[in-house]
Amino acid sequence: MHISYPSSQKIYVAGKLHDIRVGMRQISLLDTVSVENGVQTREPNAPVVVYDTSGPYSDSNADVDIRKGLPRLREPWVERRGDAERLPSFSSACDGERRADAAAQFPLVHLPRRAKEGRCITQMGYARQGIITPEMEYAAIRENQQCEALGVSSHITPEFVRDEVAAGRAVLPANVNHPEAEPMVIGARFLVKINTNIGSSALSSGVEEEVEKAIWSCKWGGDTLMDLSTGEHIHDAREWIIRNSPVPVGTVPIYQALKKVNGEIAALSWEVYRDTLVEQCEQGVDYFTIHAGLLRAHLPLVQRRLTGIVSRGGSIIAGWMAQRGEENFLYTRFEEICDILQRYDVAVSLGDGLRPGSIRDANDAAQLAELAALGRLTRTAWQRHVQVLIEGPGHVPMHKIRANVEEQLRCCHGAPFYTLGPLTTDIAPGYDHITSAIGAAQIARYGTAMICYVTPKEHLGLPDREDVRAGVIAYKIAAHAADLAKGHPGAQVRDDALSKARFDFRWRDQLSLALDPEKAAEYHAIGKSGSESDHCTMCGPNFCAMKLTKECVHSE
Amino acid sequence: MHISYPSSQKIYVAGKLHDIRVGMRQISLLDTVSVENGVQTREPNAPVVVYDTSGPYSDSNADVDIRKGLPRLREPWVERRGDAERLPSFSSACDGERRADAAAQFPLVHLPRRAKEGRCITQMGYARQGIITPEMEYAAIRENQQCEALGVSSHITPEFVRDEVAAGRAVLPANVNHPEAEPMVIGARFLVKINTNIGSSALSSGVEEEVEKAIWSCKWGGDTLMDLSTGEHIHDAREWIIRNSPVPVGTVPIYQALKKVNGEIAALSWEVYRDTLVEQCEQGVDYFTIHAGLLRAHLPLVQRRLTGIVSRGGSIIAGWMAQRGEENFLYTRFEEICDILQRYDVAVSLGDGLRPGSIRDANDAAQLAELAALGRLTRTAWQRHVQVLIEGPGHVPMHKIRANVEEQLRCCHGAPFYTLGPLTTDIAPGYDHITSAIGAAQIARYGTAMICYVTPKEHLGLPDREDVRAGVIAYKIAAHAADLAKGHPGAQVRDDALSKARFDFRWRDQLSLALDPEKAAEYHAIGKSGSESDHCTMCGPNFCAMKLTKECVHSE
Repeated sequence: MHISYPSSQKIYVAGKLHDIRVGMRQISLLDTVSVENGVQTREPNAPVVVYDTSGPYSDSNADVDIRKGLPRLREPWVERRGDAERLPSFSSACDGERRADAAAQFPLVHLPRRAKEGRCITQMGYARQGIITPEMEYAAIRENQQCEALGVSSHITPEFVRDEVAAGRAVLPANVNHPEAEPMVIGARFLVKINTNIGSSALSSGVEEEVEKAIWSCKWGGDTLMDLSTGEHIHDAREWIIRNSPVPVGTVPIYQALKKVNGEIAALSWEVYRDTLVEQCEQGVDYFTIHAGLLRAHLPLVQRRLTGIVSRGGSIIAGWMAQRGEENFLYTRFEEICDILQRYDVAVSLGDGLRPGSIRDANDAAQLAELAALGRLTRTAWQRHVQVLIEGPGHVPMHKIRANVEEQLRCCHGAPFYTLGPLTTDIAPGYDHITSAIGAAQIARYGTAMICYVTPKEHLGLPDREDVRAGVIAYKIAAHAADLAKGHPGAQVRDDALSKARFDFRWRDQLSLALDPEKAAEYHAIGKSGSESDHCTMCGPNFCAMKLTKECVHSE
Repeated sequence: MHISYPSSQKIYVAGKLHDIRVGMRQISLLDTVSVENGVQTREPNAPVVVYDTSGPYSDSNADVDIRKGLPRLREPWVERRGDAERLPSFSSACDGERRADAAAQFPLVHLPRRAKEGRCITQMGYARQGIITPEMEYAAIRENQQCEALGVSSHITPEFVRDEVAAGRAVLPANVNHPEAEPMVIGARFLVKINTNIGSSALSSGVEEEVEKAIWSCKWGGDTLMDLSTGEHIHDAREWIIRNSPVPVGTVPIYQALKKVNGEIAALSWEVYRDTLVEQCEQGVDYFTIHAGLLRAHLPLVQRRLTGIVSRGGSIIAGWMAQRGEENFLYTRFEEICDILQRYDVAVSLGDGLRPGSIRDANDAAQLAELAALGRLTRTAWQRHVQVLIEGPGHVPMHKIRANVEEQLRCCHGAPFYTLGPLTTDIAPGYDHITSAIGAAQIARYGTAMICYVTPKEHLGLPDREDVRAGVIAYKIAAHAADLAKGHPGAQVRDDALSKARFDFRWRDQLSLALDPEKAAEYHAIGKSGSESDHCTMCGPNFCAMKLTKECVHSE
C-alpha cells in the first residue's frame, strides 16, 4: 500500500523540544527559463513544502502492510509520560463476542492503555499544567510547513498550540490507543481542517472497501476521518481502519449501541452505550460525536420545521426520548461520559442533533436552543479536561452563515466549530459537494475550525471512491480559500508557486502543485498540443494571453 | 432538436401591457401522503414554476429545425416601433468573402436592421423616454416566475425594469438583429445571471459541436452565451449560433479582427475593427466585450505582477500599443464605437484587460487603474444611450471580494458588474469550476449582476459538452445561493419544495426539482434499494433520520 505524488518527496522536520520528526511533502520545481536578446537564462525555483496527511504511505522507505497496521509513532511518547497503564485485557463486555468472525478480524491485538487511577492524560490536562507535549510540538511544526524554508515568522509555536488547547479553543485529538495517528490540531487560529466520512451501511460496502477509502481520503488531504458504519462487522471494520489510519478517527457510538440492541430504539440503555464507549475508547477512536444537547424541551420546536430532524444520531435520541418519555440519557449521564473519555484522551464532538436540514430551517429556534445546551456541556467537559468540538450545520443560506458561527463561538466559549458544509441551497442534489463548499469556505473564513466534507452523492446514496475524492478536493479548496482569507502564515506560497509555473508554462510544475495532480494531468493531456508547448487548446497558439504578454513585455 | 425536463411542461404567462407571452417551466409535483392512526391522507403540492432559458426547444408544440433557426419572436415588436429600417444588404466589407465557404453557411439570409437616421433604438434610450417596451415587460414577468402563483408581491415590475435600465443599473441586451432571443435583464436588483463561454479555437471544435454546446448551455440554465471562437469559420459558426440561440449572444470582436489581419497584432487597425463591429452588429450579436480601458499608462503597472496579463483581448491590445507605440485605439475611438453600437442596440461590455490572473495580483494597482478608466467610458456610452456592462476578475481571495465589487460599483456609477468567477485559490486546476463558484457566489451576493462560468478544464484545455454542463450547474448554484442571500422574491420556493419532497420521500419530485435532474437520477439509481423506498443507501433503512423523525413525531 503506497501513495505517491508527482515530483514529490517525503521530508521530515525535526523537533526542537522533543525527539520527533514531522513528515511533510516537498514538491521540487523546474527552473524558470527566459530568453532575452537571444540569451537564455535559468533561474531556480525553490521547492514548495506542503502539509501532508498521507502518513507513512507516501514514504518510499516505509514498508506498509495493512495487515500489520502503521508504525505506532506515539507509543514511546505515551510510555515515557508514565501516567497510563496497559490493561491486561479489554474492558468492554462485548470483547469475546466481537472476535467470533475470524475472517473479518484484524490479525494483531494491541492491549489497550488507560490513565492510571488519579492521573489526567488528556492533552488539555497537560496544556493546563503548562506542559508542551511532543504532540503539541508536532502539530505546531506541521502548521508551519512553509515558514521555516521561507524565513517567514509564524504565530504558531508549540507554546501557542499549548495555550490554545489549554483554553479549549483548539483540540488535539490523541487517544493513547491510536498511537498510529500523527498529531494535528483543530482550532480557528490554525489551518482549516477537513473531515471525511466513510463507513458501510446495511446495504453496502465491505471492510476492504472502507479501509481503501480511508487511505484514499488521506491521500487527497483529509485531516480526520469518521467511520460512520452502521452495517455488519462494525467493530472489526473500525479496527482495520484505526490501525491503518495516520489521521485521527471519529465515530458516532450510538450507531453501534443501537445495533447491539438490534435496532430497537427504546431498548437503548446507558449500560449498552457506556460499554460501547469503553469498547471504542480502548480501540483507539480519537473523538466521539455525542448528541448530548438535544433535550426533550426542544422537540416541540422541531414541529415547526420543514424537514424535522436530519441528524441520524439526533433522530435516534429524539425517538428514544419520545418512546421512553425520559430525558436524553446522553445529557443526564454526560459527566460520567466525560469521566470515561478523560481516561483515554478521547475528545467529545458535541453533536448537533437539531442541525437544519433545509435552507428554511436554518438558524431556527430548535438549532439555537440545542446550541445553548452544547455551551453548558462544553463547560462540564472542560472541567474534566476533556477536549471539545462543537458540531454545526448543515443547510444555511449565505446571509446567515456568519451569524451562525459567531453565535456558536459565543455560546460555546470559543470551542472549535466543526460544521457539515453548510449547503447554501437545497436545489442541487448530485452537486452538494459544490453547494456546500461555497458555504464551507465562508463559515471557515469566519472562524469554523474544521469542515466536514459532503460528496456529490449526498442525499442520494453512499459515496464510492471517486465521490470521496471529489468531496475531499472540494473541501481542500474551501479550507485553503479560507486559510488565504484568514492570512494563515505561508498559505499563499503554493498559490504563488503554481501561478508562476503557469505564467512560465512549466506545465509539469503546474500539475505537481495542483491539489489533484492526476485530474489536472488527465485534463491537460486531452487539451495539450505537445508536451513542451507554451499554450493549450483553450486559446490555441495565437490567442494565448500569457504568451502574448511575454512577447509584449519583451518588445517594450 | 428538443429539450425535455422531467415532470415539466412549458407554460406561457401573458403580458398586461403588451401582446407577449413569456415562457416558463412548470414542474408538477406528487401529493404528500401521510398515514396517521391508520388513515391515509393526501395533500396536493402546488406545481413549481421556474425561470426557463431553454426557449422554444422545451416547447413540445414547437418544431425547431436548426437549419431554419428559431422563431423571430421580437421581429414584430421592432417593426411596430417603426424607428428601424431594413437594409438592402449587409454593410460590412467582408460580406462577399464570408459566403465563400458554402458548406459551413447557415442556409437562410435575414437582411439586417438598423436605426433610422436620427432615431435612438436602444432599450436605454426608450427607458429614458419613459417607454416600457415589450422587452422590459417580458423581462419583468420572467423575474417573477414564482410570485404570481404564490401571490407574493415583488418589487420587479415593468416600471422597475424601465427605471433600472434608464439609470444604467441594468442592461437588457436586445440587438434588433437577434430577434430570436428572449428578453432578459442583467442588474444587481434582479436574479443573478450566468454566462457561458463557448467557441472553437484553432486546435479544436467545429460548427456543429459549438451549436450543440450553445443549446446544451441553454438547457442547463445559461442566461447568455459568449462565442469566443478564434478558429476557422468564425462568421459562419456565429451565424448558426445566433440564429439558434434563445439567449443573448456576446463576442469579443477583436478576435475576429485579428484573424482578418492574419494574426499580426501590429497590423490591426481601426478600419478592420470597425468593419468587424458592423459585421457582427448586423449579424445580431447582443453585446461586445471591448477592452477600451486598457491604456498605455497602465502597462508599467503590469511589470510588478506575478502573472502579467491573462485576458486574451487585453494582451492583444497591450501588444498593439507596445508594437505601435500608440494609445489603445479602442479608447481613442470609443465615441465612434458607441455611435455604431447605438444603431443596433448592441451593449458594450467593457473588458477588464488587466484582470488579475492569480491571487497575488488581485485588486492590484493595474486592475484598479483600468477600472477607473472603465468608469469614464461608462459615462461616454451612457451619453449615447448605449447600455454598459463592466467586466471583472478573475482571481480574488475571499477577503478581497467585497471590496472588489464595491469599488466597481463606485467607479462605474452602478453599471452592472459581470465577473469571471472569481477563483478564490490558484491551487486546484481541474476543479476551477469549484474554486470559482465559491468566489462567484460571494461576489454575486455583494452586487455582481452576472457571473461568467468557469469549467473544470479552465487553464488546461477547451471544455467539452460535459465540462459545459459542469460549469453551468456550478454557476447556477452560485447564482441561486446569491439570490437566496439577497432575498430575491420567490427564490426560496424551489428550495422549500425540494426539501419538502425530500422529507416526504417523494423521490420523483426531488429529482424533477433538481438543477440537474439527470445527474441526480443517475446517482439515486445507483443508490436506491427500490423505487418507492423511503430510504437510500446512504443511511440504509434503519438509520434514516427522516424516517426516524416521522416515526418519532407519530409516536408522540
